[in-house]
Formats: sequence, C-alpha cells, structure tokens
Amino acid sequence: MKLYAYGIDVGGTTVKCGLFGTDGTFYEGWEIPTVKDNGGAQIIPDIAAAIRSNMKERAIEIENVEGVGIGVPGPVREDGVVNGCVNLGWGVYDVRTELSGLLDGIRVEVANDANVAALGEMWRGGGQGYKNVVMVTLGTGVGGGIIINGKILHGAHGAGGEIGHITVNRNESKPCGCGKKGCLEQYASATGIARRAAEAMAAPGAPVSSLYNYDVVDARAVFDAAKTGDELALSVVQFACRTLGRACASITSVVDPDVIVIGGGVSRAGQILVDAIVKYYVQNAFTATRETPFKLAVLGNNAGMYGAVKMILD
Amino acid sequence: MKLYAYGIDVGGTTVKCGLFGTDGTFYEGWEIPTVKDNGGAQIIPDIAAAIRSNMKERAIEIENVEGVGIGVPGPVREDGVVNGCVNLGWGVYDVRTELSGLLDGIRVEVANDANVAALGEMWRGGGQGYKNVVMVTLGTGVGGGIIINGKILHGAHGAGGEIGHITVNRNESKPCGCGKKGCLEQYASATGIARRAAEAMAAPGAPVSSLYNYDVVDARAVFDAAKTGDELALSVVQFACRTLGRACASITSVVDPDVIVIGGGVSRAGQILVDAIVKYYVQNAFTATRETPFKLAVLGNNAGMYGAVKMILD
Repeated sequence: MKLYAYGIDVGGTTVKCGLFGTDGTFYEGWEIPTVKDNGGAQIIPDIAAAIRSNMKERAIEIENVEGVGIGVPGPVREDGVVNGCVNLGWGVYDVRTELSGLLDGIRVEVANDANVAALGEMWRGGGQGYKNVVMVTLGTGVGGGIIINGKILHGAHGAGGEIGHITVNRNESKPCGCGKKGCLEQYASATGIARRAAEAMAAPGAPVSSLYNYDVVDARAVFDAAKTGDELALSVVQFACRTLGRACASITSVVDPDVIVIGGGVSRAGQILVDAIVKYYVQNAFTATRETPFKLAVLGNNAGMYGAVKMILD
Repeated sequence: MKLYAYGIDVGGTTVKCGLFGTDGTFYEGWEIPTVKDNGGAQIIPDIAAAIRSNMKERAIEIENVEGVGIGVPGPVREDGVVNGCVNLGWGVYDVRTELSGLLDGIRVEVANDANVAALGEMWRGGGQGYKNVVMVTLGTGVGGGIIINGKILHGAHGAGGEIGHITVNRNESKPCGCGKKGCLEQYASATGIARRAAEAMAAPGAPVSSLYNYDVVDARAVFDAAKTGDELALSVVQFACRTLGRACASITSVVDPDVIVIGGGVSRAGQILVDAIVKYYVQNAFTATRETPFKLAVLGNNAGMYGAVKMILD
C-alpha cells in the first residue's frame, strides 16, 4: 500500500479535507468553501485542486497516494455514482470517475455522508472495536449509516441507512421533507424536537417552564432545561427518545448490529439522551437484541473525513 | 475447489439433506427424521452418519468434499455457534465444531434456517441475479433473511432478519410468542391471518361470506375465498398485506435491498398476495426505494438446502 490517502467530506457550506497516512495516521485537516454555483459543477474540480495543492506543499507524488475517499450529502450507489444531491445542485453524477480523472486515475471511493460518518465512528469513534454498527445521526434531520462486516451498506438505490424515513406515526398531518407523513425525522431531529417544544409550550395548561425564558427554543435549549429537571422540557425529551427507542428496536430486529452509535448535533446533549433512548429501546426490542449497547459518537464533524479515508484503507 | 458439498436443512420434524457438485449441480436430496429426544443430542451425529452413508453409497472420499452447510431453526452467530433452538431442545451449541469433528474436520458453515432460505432464493430462486435480498417468510410465524453482497447478515446475536418481531401495533393486548405485543408475526403469519379471519367472522354485522362453509378457516381458506371475490376474506387479506407492506417500507429504509422475496407457506397464495403487499408498500416507502421489486419465492421447502450448500460454495 502507498503512503498517503485523502478523506473528503462534502458539506453544504464547506468541504472538509484530510490527509492521512495509510497506516491510519491523521496528518492534517483543512476546509475549502463549497461553491454551489452552476449546479455545483466546480465542487469536484475544487477538491482535486485542493488535493493537488496539498501534495505540492508536502512534496507528495501521486504515485504515493493510495486514493481519495469522499462523502457527499445524497444517495450514492455502490459504483460511486451519486443519485442526485439537492443541496449541492447535483443530478445523477459519476463522482468517482470525474474525481479520479482529475487526479491521474487514482482510486476514488464515494459514499453517502451519513454512511461515511458511521464508518468513521466504527474506525476511530463510538463504534471502535465493532464491525457491525448502526449509526443514528440526529441533526437538522435524522440520518443513519449501517456498517456490516466493516463495510458500508450502500443499498440498491443509495438509500441504505435512511432510517429517518421509517414511518413511526400514521396519524401525522404535516408532511416530512421527503413527502411522506409521520417519518422518524419529524420527531427525533433537532427541528422535530424544537417543534414539539413549541407545541407543548403553546398547549393550554402547559406547566411552568424555564423554556419560556429562552429567546430561541431549539433542541439544545430543550436538553439544557431538561438537565435542570424542567418538567415540560423533560416531557419533550421523553417523547423524542421514545420515538427513537422504538425505531431502534425495529432496526435491530432487521440488522442486529454489535452497537448503535448516536451522533449529530443533538447528541451533544450527552448521556441524558442515550439513557432516555435506551429506556424505551429495552421495552420494545426483540429479546435477543435487548442488550445491544448504545454509545455516543465521539468524532463530531470529523467523522465524515475519517470514514471517507477508511474506504481507501480497506 | 473439491468436487462435492452437502446442504442440510434441519427442521422440527425432518432434516433435509442434499448432495451438490461444487459447480452448483444438485445431485440428490433425501430426508431423515429429526430425533428430538435427549435435548436433540442425536441430531448432529445423525446428520454426520447420513452424510457418511451417502458418501459410501456414491464412493465419495472425504478429500473430495468441500464442506457441509447447515441451516437450523434458531439464532446462529457468525462463528457457527447456535444460540439456543427451542424446537430442537438445543441450548447454546457449537454446531460447527461438533459436525466438523464428526466428519474428519471438514469445513462446516452454520446459519439460521430463514437466513439460509434467503440465500437459497438469491442463488437459485426468486432473488436470482441479485446480491442484496430481503426475504420475508410467511409461515406459522413470520421469519426473514437478509443477504448483503451475497452473504447472510447473521447479526451480532444471530437475530439478523428477525423481521417478524418488528412492532407494528402498539395497542395489541395479546402477547406474541416472543413475549412482546404487536409484532408483525401476530398479523401477517398464517396463524395471524386465521386469527383475524375468526375475529372478522365473529364480529357483529359481518358480511355474508363463503368462509362460514369451511371446516377450518386457515390462511389458505382465506386466500382461496378472497380469489373468488369474497368480501370478508378480501378484507382479511388487505389487513395482513397492509401490515406487511408498511413493515417492508420500514425495512427498505434501513437496508435498501435490490429485491424483496416473499416465501413460506402463505406465499403459495401467489400474485394476489404480492399485489396487495406492493399496494401498501408503495404508499409507505421512502421515495428512493419505492420501486424495489417484490418477487415470489420459487424453491419452496428446498430453499434451505440450496442456501445451506451455497455457504460452502462461496
């Protein structure tokens, strides 16, 4: 194996780039802006240029680069073709071929960003020591990634691990971003938690709550208030975690992972979140999977970069 | 690769045995009784003896046997240890080591019977041409098997593909065999369909129905009557298939397979079953997975034998 590899995580605002040794050493990370003009046509050339420039700086020859792993915020098929990325302006786009072509034909692996983050957490984060991992990413939406035998489960349509769109409430009247109604994402995302809090605060007979003192009642405010014992905030947390715990019970009946890793911005709430999810998980899980451990993600925004390069190191 | 391999499917009453060429040719199948006395202690020695006897008959030397694949009706870990088989009287049992020891140390692979059937259907049945398959087995219970990249997803506790125990109804008062309430199996199994039919027939104001003329109203009777347009039978079929279609929508959001194969005794109802499942599946599936094809299983009771040997051929 050659000496170096790059891990790239494409976000809606910035692209995180990392230089790694193929022994797993992390040498350097940096960011470039995500230029979304012209249907995102510049993004991949910009990444190629950033890599070239880093190689020049460090006097790394292309012959010494094993490859580039890249995570993108959209569905990706196993062959490296992106099946549309609304956030970036991409339609169906063969990222693997394009990026490889710009870098003298070196090996490129492409995957969905949530899947890549799951791989990163397996390698160096909350899922370390395991090879079958379900990662649940609680951010603006609810994403997920599934690792089976150390490899990303891409899915036939690049939708492997799209657990945010499991239907959990058949009586929901408001549509999810995906067009369906009652998706997990509508209740367990940061957005869903804030919405639930606003509803609870507006409800007649709502209890006294410190949440009324916040300028913005977001998921973070809800967890902060819950940690002080605020009754209303606690009920919102319990609601989100009940929904999550039940959904995780369905997921483990299907894939029976070694571990479930909880990540994304909402996971900064910490152990209070995990404890509440586990409480409802245990009540709903199939016997054999009842003791599946839950761990907090540890790599934060670097998980994607780590997971991306791991695709090359395998 | 050597010339021969055996595929074994252990059932509660009989053990199905098959001799295959390692090129995939099926030479011969036969059955032996499953002797469940003494905690099922005789089952594996009986299988070893049946294989020895077949080898002798055909003058096959052990040096020419690549291995034995075996499916058992219980959870199996990836290391070939069975995690308890209530039906056979087995506790935790290292079937791989035991059977291999009885056959001069040849390669043995062990897996859960529903998982093995899924592999068989992928290889030679309804999932042919695909390598990512979810199989739903509708029998006395609801089983399942998941194949990712051509390999069985065993799961950390041998519970991979235990889709019958996804909770689909939080208001159920009767317990499932697993101890939980509201499992998919309670509605979509042959037993569940018969139960629903009995309830519908006993309900006040139930429509006129040919089902009242049957001595035994089992799942088969329900589908037979539904095919004649019987209103009550059709409503029972729609109920089971709505539950199944929704559950399949959750499953594809998680693993996004190439195909879903419907098997088990209930699947003999044929296209009427698939059509009704697909109707509800499409309404509930995440956009990217909405067109995932559904196929009927084709190998029937031989799926296990085929899948078992396939573990050896891979």
